[in-house]
Order: sequence, then C-alpha cells, then structure tokens
Amino acid sequence: MEITAIPVEGYEKVVRAMDPASGLCALIAIHDLTLGPALGGLRMWPYRSEEEALTDVLRLARGMTYKSACADTGLGGGKSVIIGNAKTDKNEALFRAMGRFIDSLGGDYITAEDVGIGIRELEWIKLETDYVTGLSRDSGSSGNPSPFTARGVMRGLRACAEEAFATSRLDGFHYAVQGLGQVGGDVVRGLSMVGGFLTVTDISEERLAQFAALPGVETVAPDEIFDVECDFFVPNALGGVLNDDTIPRLKCKVVAGAANNQLLEPRHGSMLHERDILYAPDYVINAGGIINVSIELIPGGYNERVAVEKIENIYTALKAIFATARRDRCTPAQAADRVAEQRLAEARNANPLAGRASS
Amino acid sequence: MEITAIPVEGYEKVVRAMDPASGLCALIAIHDLTLGPALGGLRMWPYRSEEEALTDVLRLARGMTYKSACADTGLGGGKSVIIGNAKTDKNEALFRAMGRFIDSLGGDYITAEDVGIGIRELEWIKLETDYVTGLSRDSGSSGNPSPFTARGVMRGLRACAEEAFATSRLDGFHYAVQGLGQVGGDVVRGLSMVGGFLTVTDISEERLAQFAALPGVETVAPDEIFDVECDFFVPNALGGVLNDDTIPRLKCKVVAGAANNQLLEPRHGSMLHERDILYAPDYVINAGGIINVSIELIPGGYNERVAVEKIENIYTALKAIFATARRDRCTPAQAADRVAEQRLAEARNANPLAGRASS
Repeated sequence: MEITAIPVEGYEKVVRAMDPASGLCALIAIHDLTLGPALGGLRMWPYRSEEEALTDVLRLARGMTYKSACADTGLGGGKSVIIGNAKTDKNEALFRAMGRFIDSLGGDYITAEDVGIGIRELEWIKLETDYVTGLSRDSGSSGNPSPFTARGVMRGLRACAEEAFATSRLDGFHYAVQGLGQVGGDVVRGLSMVGGFLTVTDISEERLAQFAALPGVETVAPDEIFDVECDFFVPNALGGVLNDDTIPRLKCKVVAGAANNQLLEPRHGSMLHERDILYAPDYVINAGGIINVSIELIPGGYNERVAVEKIENIYTALKAIFATARRDRCTPAQAADRVAEQRLAEARNANPLAGRASS
Repeated sequence: MEITAIPVEGYEKVVRAMDPASGLCALIAIHDLTLGPALGGLRMWPYRSEEEALTDVLRLARGMTYKSACADTGLGGGKSVIIGNAKTDKNEALFRAMGRFIDSLGGDYITAEDVGIGIRELEWIKLETDYVTGLSRDSGSSGNPSPFTARGVMRGLRACAEEAFATSRLDGFHYAVQGLGQVGGDVVRGLSMVGGFLTVTDISEERLAQFAALPGVETVAPDEIFDVECDFFVPNALGGVLNDDTIPRLKCKVVAGAANNQLLEPRHGSMLHERDILYAPDYVINAGGIINVSIELIPGGYNERVAVEKIENIYTALKAIFATARRDRCTPAQAADRVAEQRLAEARNANPLAGRASS
C-alpha cells in the first residue's frame, strides 16, 4: 500500500492510500486534533475524480471539528472516503486494506459509519485496527445511534423553546415534521407523548399512515410541509431543505431538526434570521449520535448512562450559541462556528502543544 | 329474548337478558346517568354464577361513573357482561342478540371493548344497535385507544411532578416502569425522548431487549422493579400491584401509571400516603382511552383534535384531586372519589331532572 501525504493549509494531516492488491483508493483528512483524536465517519462513494473526493473529505472533516467542539465530545475532527461503488465494490480485502490505512495514523483518526458503510464493513476494518467505533452493542460498542440523536434533538428543541418562547415546556406547541425515519420517528413519538400537536410528512405513505395513529398527529403530503402554520419546523430528512424556495413559505418561529446540511448555502442562515425564525444549527442539534459513539473512547469503554448525560451538552451548546448570536448580533449558524472556534482557541491557549498530530 | 330488571340500590338500572335462541345470558348495569349516557365496556367472562357476574358488573359500572366524572367526558357510568367463554362461545348470533339487548335501553347504555371482546364482536353488535363505540378508525370511529391512554399518562405524570417536585418538567427524573405493552411502551418511548432515566421491566424478554436500546433505559427482571430507587414508579401491567408485599419495598416519591385497579385494597392507598408516596388514582390517570372514545359521541362525530385537547382533563383532574387531598387531609384515592361525587352533586343541583333513565 502506498500512502502519500497531501499538504492542505489549515488541516493537520491529509493522506491518500493506493493499494493495487485490494483496489483501495482512499483519503483520510484530519482537520484538527486540538480537542482530541479526530473521529469521523467513513464514506464510500463513486466520486468522479480524486479531486472531487478530496473536496468532500476536507469539507466533512472540518465539519466534524466544529460538531465535536460544540458537543464537547473531547474529540477532534476528521473524515475518510473510499472512492468506489458501495453497491458493487465491497469486499473484505478492500476494507481490511482500509483498516491498515487507518491504523497507520496511530489513532489520530478514528472511524465510524457513514454513507455506504454498514456494520459488516466496520467489522472487516476492526480486523486490522482498533480505531473504529459504532460496532454492534453486543460487542461492547455503542450500538444504534439513532435514538440518541433523537433524544438530542428533543433536548435541543427545549433550548429553542426557551429562546423563542421563554418556556422550557414542549407541550402545547405545533410542530411540522419532515421525515419519519429512525430519528424523525422517535422525535414524533416523543412529541406526541409529551403533549405536542404535530403535522408530519414522509415520502413513504406506509410510514405516514403508521404515525397518523399517534395522538395529536396529522399528516400532509411531502410538498405541503413547508406551508404548515406551526411553532417549530423540524427537518429530519433531506439536506439543502432551507433554500430560496422554501424559506419564504415557512410559517414557524423555529427551525430545529436532525437533518444534515439543512442550509442550502450559508446565506440561507441569514435569510431565516431576517424572517425572525430561530435556527438551531444542524450540526449542533443532531450531535447525539456522535456524542454516543464518543463514549466508546473513554477509559473503561462504552457506558450508556454517561452517553445519555453527555447528550445534555446539546442543550447547553444551543443556549451558548443563542446567547452569542444575541450578543454579537449574528445568526445562530455563525454563532455556532464562533462557539466552536472559541473552544478550540481556549484549548490551544491552555495547552500550546495540543493538537499536533502525534505521528 | 327475556329482559328482566334487577332492582339494585344506588343504581339507575340493572337488567338481565336471557336469549335461549342464541344462548345469550348477559347483564347491563347503568350506575349513573347524571352526566350523560352510560359508556362502559362489554366483558365476556366464564363467571361461575350469575351472582358473581352481577357483583362484577355493578363494581365496574360504578367505577365508570367515577372515571368519567373525573375525566369530564360528559358521560355517565355503566358496564355490561356476557356470561360465557370468550375462547369458545363467540358467534354472530350471540353478539347480535347482545346488540338488541343494548338497543333496548334506547341509548342510556353505550358499549365498547373490554376483556374478551374485540373489533369483530363490536361489529356484530353494530349490526343491531348504534350504541357502540371503539370500532376501527377507517369506519369513522376513534381507533386504537392505547396511544391516547399513554399520552394521558404523560400528562398525569406532569401533574404529579408539579405536586411532588414543584416542577412541570419530566426530564432528569428516574422512572421505574412495570410493563411495556402498548401503553407502557409508548410511555417509555416518550420519557426516554424527553430526557428521563428509566429502569423498565416486562415479562417478555424480547420486549425488554427491544426497549433496552432506547437512550436512558436500563432493564431489570420483573420482580426487581419494586426495589428500584427512583422518583416515579409507573405500573402499566397487573392489577393489585400495590399491596402489603410491594409497598414497603417501593423507593419512590410518586406512583403513577396506566394499570387498572392498582391498589389491592382501598387501605393500600392509605399505606402509600403514610409512606409519603404520592399516588395518582389509576382510574384518573388512565382515562385517555375513554376520553378518546367519548369523542365519538359528540355532534359531528369523532374528531382527533378535540380528543387530544380533552386529554388535558387528566392533568386538570389530578391537580384538583391533589388539592382536595391536601385540603381535606385525605389520600388522593379518596380525593378522587370526592371530586367525582362533587361533580355529580353539582350537576344534580344544576338540573334536578338530570340522570333519570329515559326509558
């Protein structure tokens, strides 16, 4: 296997692996190690070029630094990608090679599931390196992250209720929820039980019918969800869902949900702000999964109780972000970046040697 | 069919039907009509004697009066029983005869599901009378009551939190939950999402394993649940679960759950009180199902939004009950009866003609 360093400004380390024997062509980007080893998922995707793969892994690795800094996981930010087709190109040799690639970084990068990767692939990787998280719970790992993400979203909704409505209660509000997957479904069940009124949608009519039986839950067609008069718009499905088309349609006071990359472009954060809609930055409110998996790395191993307590960090982080946004007259999305950068700066000041890659 | 009135003091009307053609032997007890027609389930059970059946139907009918009065459903209390074996003796002729028996009371008694009875039997009854509720939602009926009961329990838990802990929040507390059936399962999902810490049990190990994956949820063996150090003990399974054996073991500040007839005997309400454990009377906190079904009877028919809003009555009723218990220095179980009786007395005073059976 040939491993080459790619110098990228602002990144701790970016490396490429080419392994003709297994066909592996992969990149690992470590954005920042100030707060701890760089945890971030492995994605398998048929990128059209190595340049496209590099752009993606750099963007994702940087996002993990900010996500972990806000969630206070004690982790840095990194990510990895395999150039390949997840439907046709998966085999043990490929992922064992990826495992050796990860192992070569001596623990500065720790991997986990992402698009195109499942438990089986992680288990192949595990044969070659210990720097892998998110295996099944039977093996002492942290298990399915979705309910933890959902609980984190609920805690985040409470922080939003306090900011937008000056109450810490979630009952009595109207929620428009897009997406009833594992995370969205748990959030809807929670809000129905706690006394919310919900209008929900999903591209699966079967799932939609299933949730219609919950008290306080009405359903609409997928495209109608943006027009629902509500207090909270809760996107749990697509990325880029907050854009020029949808933002003018929203009739809510808060946008807060589990979907990744909700803002199509950064300026859409300002567009929400101008409409006086409070936005919970997605990478902050959906951090329950990474918080859960991060607990695998504490001494003594995974402990659910510790994971659940640490999910409170989402509430705390959003409170800090909203306070920063008010103080600095910026959007919550901008404030989230500032809170993350401030935490990184404080850690660097406290320990000027922190964050240098150990290898 | 031979229908005979049985005079019973304190009851509006008690009637027996004998129908040799279908083999029907049934009793309907209407306890009170002050607040509206008497809604209550139909039970099929192999009673060993008609006397045993009569004792049961009288007790159950009276319970419905109190339940509906506290829940403010606008209904009176009644119940019916068929003497027979639900496993072997069910057939269309029998239930059509029961339907005619119910119809003969002209709407003073309205039936619903109870032990031994399912949708199919209700549909047979429906062929002979309109005085039946709880059919499937497709037919414009109120559908599965369980999630409504669960939402009502959650609202009741909030009233208990306010009384016992002076907070309207449910997060951060420790709940020991017995029973993960439809209602208990929904309550556990809700409490996990809202930020609770739970210790749960169920006689099914499979169900137990399923709920163990939720954040903040730990499991114990069925018999250990009484010994769990917690804030809330939440019984959702057996009747008689609060008794001489279990009450001394409880390490909680509140008992509040969905199970029916939780107190083995009335004195066990006092026993909880002496241990300074707040008890949410079971027939008050588990009224979400009957509230939901009662909405079928409003003009215009079933409306889920109205049902969900009326479930708030559980919160309101418990607040009134706890205030009464404090004022009168009695137990919440005694206070619930007083609140119900007071509502009945007020209605009788307001309209002295109310509550006389129309037939």
